[in-house]
Amino acid sequence: MQIASTQQLSPPPRLRRGALRVTPLGGLGEIGRNMTVFEHEGKLLVVDCGVLFPEDHQPGVDVILPDFASLRERLGDVVGIVLTHGHEDHIGGVPYLLRERRDIPVIGSRLTLAFVEAKLKEHRITPSTVHVEAGDTHTAGPFGLEFVAVNHSIPDGLAVAIRTAAGLVLHTGDFKMDQFPLDDRITDLRHFARLGEEGVDLFLTDSTNAEVPGFTMSEQELSPAIDQVFATAPRRIIVSSFASHVHRIQQILDAAHAHGRKVGFVGRSMVRNMGIARDLGYLTVPRGLVVDAQKLESMPDDKVTLICTGSQGEPMAALARMANGDHQIRLTEGDTVLLASSLIPGNETAIYGLINKLTDRGARVVHKGNAKVHVSGHASAGELVYCYNIVRPRNVMPVHGESKHLRANAELAIRTGVPADRVVIARDGVVVDLVDGTATIVGAVQADYIYVDGQTVGHADEQTLDERRALRDNGVLTVVAIVDVPGARLAEPLEFVGKGVAVSPETLQGVTRDVEQALAKAPRQALEDVDSLDDLVRKAVDRSLRRKTRQGPVVIAVVVEA
Amino acid sequence: MQIASTQQLSPPPRLRRGALRVTPLGGLGEIGRNMTVFEHEGKLLVVDCGVLFPEDHQPGVDVILPDFASLRERLGDVVGIVLTHGHEDHIGGVPYLLRERRDIPVIGSRLTLAFVEAKLKEHRITPSTVHVEAGDTHTAGPFGLEFVAVNHSIPDGLAVAIRTAAGLVLHTGDFKMDQFPLDDRITDLRHFARLGEEGVDLFLTDSTNAEVPGFTMSEQELSPAIDQVFATAPRRIIVSSFASHVHRIQQILDAAHAHGRKVGFVGRSMVRNMGIARDLGYLTVPRGLVVDAQKLESMPDDKVTLICTGSQGEPMAALARMANGDHQIRLTEGDTVLLASSLIPGNETAIYGLINKLTDRGARVVHKGNAKVHVSGHASAGELVYCYNIVRPRNVMPVHGESKHLRANAELAIRTGVPADRVVIARDGVVVDLVDGTATIVGAVQADYIYVDGQTVGHADEQTLDERRALRDNGVLTVVAIVDVPGARLAEPLEFVGKGVAVSPETLQGVTRDVEQALAKAPRQALEDVDSLDDLVRKAVDRSLRRKTRQGPVVIAVVVEA
Repeated sequence: MQIASTQQLSPPPRLRRGALRVTPLGGLGEIGRNMTVFEHEGKLLVVDCGVLFPEDHQPGVDVILPDFASLRERLGDVVGIVLTHGHEDHIGGVPYLLRERRDIPVIGSRLTLAFVEAKLKEHRITPSTVHVEAGDTHTAGPFGLEFVAVNHSIPDGLAVAIRTAAGLVLHTGDFKMDQFPLDDRITDLRHFARLGEEGVDLFLTDSTNAEVPGFTMSEQELSPAIDQVFATAPRRIIVSSFASHVHRIQQILDAAHAHGRKVGFVGRSMVRNMGIARDLGYLTVPRGLVVDAQKLESMPDDKVTLICTGSQGEPMAALARMANGDHQIRLTEGDTVLLASSLIPGNETAIYGLINKLTDRGARVVHKGNAKVHVSGHASAGELVYCYNIVRPRNVMPVHGESKHLRANAELAIRTGVPADRVVIARDGVVVDLVDGTATIVGAVQADYIYVDGQTVGHADEQTLDERRALRDNGVLTVVAIVDVPGARLAEPLEFVGKGVAVSPETLQGVTRDVEQALAKAPRQALEDVDSLDDLVRKAVDRSLRRKTRQGPVVIAVVVEA
Repeated sequence: MQIASTQQLSPPPRLRRGALRVTPLGGLGEIGRNMTVFEHEGKLLVVDCGVLFPEDHQPGVDVILPDFASLRERLGDVVGIVLTHGHEDHIGGVPYLLRERRDIPVIGSRLTLAFVEAKLKEHRITPSTVHVEAGDTHTAGPFGLEFVAVNHSIPDGLAVAIRTAAGLVLHTGDFKMDQFPLDDRITDLRHFARLGEEGVDLFLTDSTNAEVPGFTMSEQELSPAIDQVFATAPRRIIVSSFASHVHRIQQILDAAHAHGRKVGFVGRSMVRNMGIARDLGYLTVPRGLVVDAQKLESMPDDKVTLICTGSQGEPMAALARMANGDHQIRLTEGDTVLLASSLIPGNETAIYGLINKLTDRGARVVHKGNAKVHVSGHASAGELVYCYNIVRPRNVMPVHGESKHLRANAELAIRTGVPADRVVIARDGVVVDLVDGTATIVGAVQADYIYVDGQTVGHADEQTLDERRALRDNGVLTVVAIVDVPGARLAEPLEFVGKGVAVSPETLQGVTRDVEQALAKAPRQALEDVDSLDDLVRKAVDRSLRRKTRQGPVVIAVVVEA
């Protein structure tokens, strides 16, 4: 294996004529912010441009973008953005990229374009779009594109084959191989096979579930468990899922219809997306089934189904507010909550907390931990192996995954016979060139985490987050010192403003005494310069507190001369 | 079911003569800080006194204790602390309780006492101990105690039967029903049956795995997977487990011995506990197998096994430091890391992060997600049902669990025929009286989370944590305003000290202008009082920033009159 994480990498050399360069700017090292840039004959093609949702160690961040730094000077060379499907981790960064150049053509299937257009509208951007469907071909500069149907946890997913003089690339996007999908649109393995026979020089494939042995269950197999919930729920049913999971919502609608319940959608994104899906014919809604959520309040509890977001424990979503008792929908003993969604790693604490709160309100909570109400949207190891054997690629580059997923996927490729030295474990920013049929790591470009925080993009950086983590663990203590400089003493006792600090008044009195001593002992010149006086007071407070309480709040010293 | 969480509860009435009062002070509503107080004829008996480890929403806290407030006036009435086993969540609070009264007798089995004595030594406390073993009886005031062998993920666990004039109580502690434990010490169901035939009036039973269907696998069944690791690892093997999991460590030692490897223990708690377990005969170490970890450095990699803690991703533990490359043991391609431990809910992000970092260093990571290298220490639903049918209790009170676990356990009891109104879902602080054979919720006492933070106990409170969470998400901005009060204006531009805030200098200039305006517009009297001037500046800064950037750092305003 070529493993980027064990190498020191420099900026890449100039791309050789006729060669193809592949630079992942996101999604290799994390599940999210997927983005890959292809370069050939001076032109650039972007595949996906998603966001990553922050984890606990990235506090206060709204979303994380790929780093566009390496593109910025060459925006004019970009011939298009291909979107493989409409999930946030593949389309969420598009508004930020189009802010830098508005007229980059956005290429995708009908539902994908509808979702990204709705998002762009919020940013007041009207994109140039190119509508493609499975089987279509499209030429973008020197890149010949061909689209292949794949299924996933959102309809209308596409893999993309990219033909250049350097060879044929196949990028799966996110996919699974459900043989009985609700819309009968299976992953087109015959198309994969045709491309394989033509000769796939580089295969980029979804690593998310590469560690999961066996095969991902079909969506159809969830129907009995969902039906069971509807057959036995004595009162209301509240279903929480992703606002993009059209097929899961279809299953819920079908079950509600079969059991004589009405359905209300709750929450802006759910209402918006289901409207789009219905208008475009991806969601089939029996006449009279869906009613205004407000109307449901006057109906008998056992005729009510509510569908909302919030299955990941997001604190502002409808479900979390119901669990906390501050939503107009009040849960009571006998209500059933169905979490028809995955448990995204990193959200466990939030989700378990949500389940406990819902339980405390008397609701029965049905979730993937106690019933078969969810299947993953990604191909497991068993399916990935089929893919490798059908495509028989010359070079492999696992995408969409953390290090452990990429490695597991690489090992699967090798087990199917791909030579180990043709399997490249890259990471964000690592540049891979395909030259004469061989993929090689040639360098790296900048690929930092770009944090969106309120209205700022890229302003919060690693130092900001370091400081937030320090504040989180220890709080902050602002100290105002009125110093009599000639006397080398405090003119008044220190004034303290603490936030998130647990210190007693007695301790603070002791700190004042320690600062007095530090001033008295300080060399003359330390007192005469404002900055060094700040520094002296700050350090004395810090030292004193650590000794007295073993606590280390962030200390901000404000020194004013008396 | 009697469900405490849906009731408004007042302080309990005086306990009726001859009745038994049960007050859980921890462990009902969380996995951890287990502690239950029994009261009878004016005397108190404590069962367990553990700590809870904080979650992400409790930043900066070291551990969380049960609230001793309701005991504080009555410490003289406490006749003993029974410790069911030696895990932190059952013994970690003992030093803090003994600080309040040193001579409370501590009652437990040999290994449990050895672990708690080692812990108390660090706090410079020598306890009064009472050594009991399975089958023993002991009288503590009006409480007749009888101990029953149970197995768990630490040796020497005990359930305790408590006889009083009010009836017979059976408290399982943490337990499972491994039929083939490594030490052949099975949970004594014949003893459970004898107590059941006598008539158990109140059964307190471990809810941790009540949601898990079926049966917990035997520890013996892990041996093939562990052996496989040792049979195939090309270079070093680094095993991480809990420092108290004597049996798992025994399995590792046996596998290392069988495959001709030496073993080194790494880390203070691992070295200490394994020393205790070995000295007391709970760990069998073949001669020459365990060597000093330093010595292993000069041995061939394929002869080396290291055993350390840190399997939960704890940042200061040896394993995390190896993953970060700042431990003297340097991981390299071909090393194998075996996480022979559970994944405690709440630790997922840390553990997955650890696995990725270890993978990046080239290590193969074997964990419960990809091999059968761990089984739980708790009875699953299948085993709990057996217990209910063997004991046939008159009243049931699930313990050791979050709301969802307690509720699942209660439902199991009801399915086995315990009348629903005799099943009590209490929570921390809820007082349950056993009178005339019936358990009833009668009120509640204070049972706050008591935070240990550095050397302070109980000083950090919910407000402290609210403030830390605000600081974590938004950072802090200290603003120094030199105000010309008569002129109603700033004498100098504002001075800002920000930590964890991402704001541009231009934005801050705008903020200064907004504050100028606020001062100019302020009513006269708002300027003349220092507190209201602080307030005015703080609010003006906050408002200005939110409008300009949608960010809301904690603002600390320091106003000095010019």
